[in-house]
Amino acid sequence: MEHLTEVEILIVEDNPHDAEMALRALKENKLTNKVLVVHDGEEALDFVFARGAFADRPKTSRPKIILLDLKLPKVDGLEVLEEIKSNPVTKVIPVIMLTSSKEESDLVKSYELGVNSYIVKPVDFDKFVDAIRELGFYWLLLNQQKI
Amino acid sequence: MEHLTEVEILIVEDNPHDAEMALRALKENKLTNKVLVVHDGEEALDFVFARGAFADRPKTSRPKIILLDLKLPKVDGLEVLEEIKSNPVTKVIPVIMLTSSKEESDLVKSYELGVNSYIVKPVDFDKFVDAIRELGFYWLLLNQQKI
Repeated sequence: MEHLTEVEILIVEDNPHDAEMALRALKENKLTNKVLVVHDGEEALDFVFARGAFADRPKTSRPKIILLDLKLPKVDGLEVLEEIKSNPVTKVIPVIMLTSSKEESDLVKSYELGVNSYIVKPVDFDKFVDAIRELGFYWLLLNQQKI
Repeated sequence: MEHLTEVEILIVEDNPHDAEMALRALKENKLTNKVLVVHDGEEALDFVFARGAFADRPKTSRPKIILLDLKLPKVDGLEVLEEIKSNPVTKVIPVIMLTSSKEESDLVKSYELGVNSYIVKPVDFDKFVDAIRELGFYWLLLNQQKI
């Protein structure tokens, strides 16, 4: 990822296998190759708020969507969600939970914190790819957001 | 619509032509026939909060998604959105704006009030049907929510 100003999808995922599958599904469906993968919640917040390792990134450029895992090192997915959704500037970025957790409490808490959508990762590889394709088409092509 | 306990999609739309197109697209794609169309914002809130004409409806049953027009008689779409998203019980229902408005202020205000997704109605009939199909698949089959 050369140009951090051009990130269309921010994937926050500590499992390298899942991150790789998501990247492949996006590229194979020609949805976008402007993807940045970060591996913990702190890195995600640093990117979104242009601080820490991403302090030089232009603050005004925003990813079109954020795919957010729940269980993350350093800062948990729910905390990342809360920080993004409680700031009026970043609140407009659609955040989609992409998680293995089917726990009702995670789901309810996510909606309470203002998640845009909650998707349980299919275990089966082909179904995972299908889900990413469908998700990408929906959020990159059909949904409208602030540019 | 015989059973108000079984509404899967609540469509809030004052334009009968648009409501009919959405209904046809959902039925033709066998997504659901458990759809209720209401025609103004007051009726929408009465249904969601089981009051007024819908006072006899069981309070615990919720639609899976709400498709909400912006410009509505009696109570505006943004007010409907605000009331749904400021109540912790109804906040978990995904609300998708389905509107002709491409105005940046409507879009930003919708995200600020917590809309889950914002879709501009395609003018072309076939594209409208495609959008409803994609939206239905995404929200009824892929997205997870509280039952």
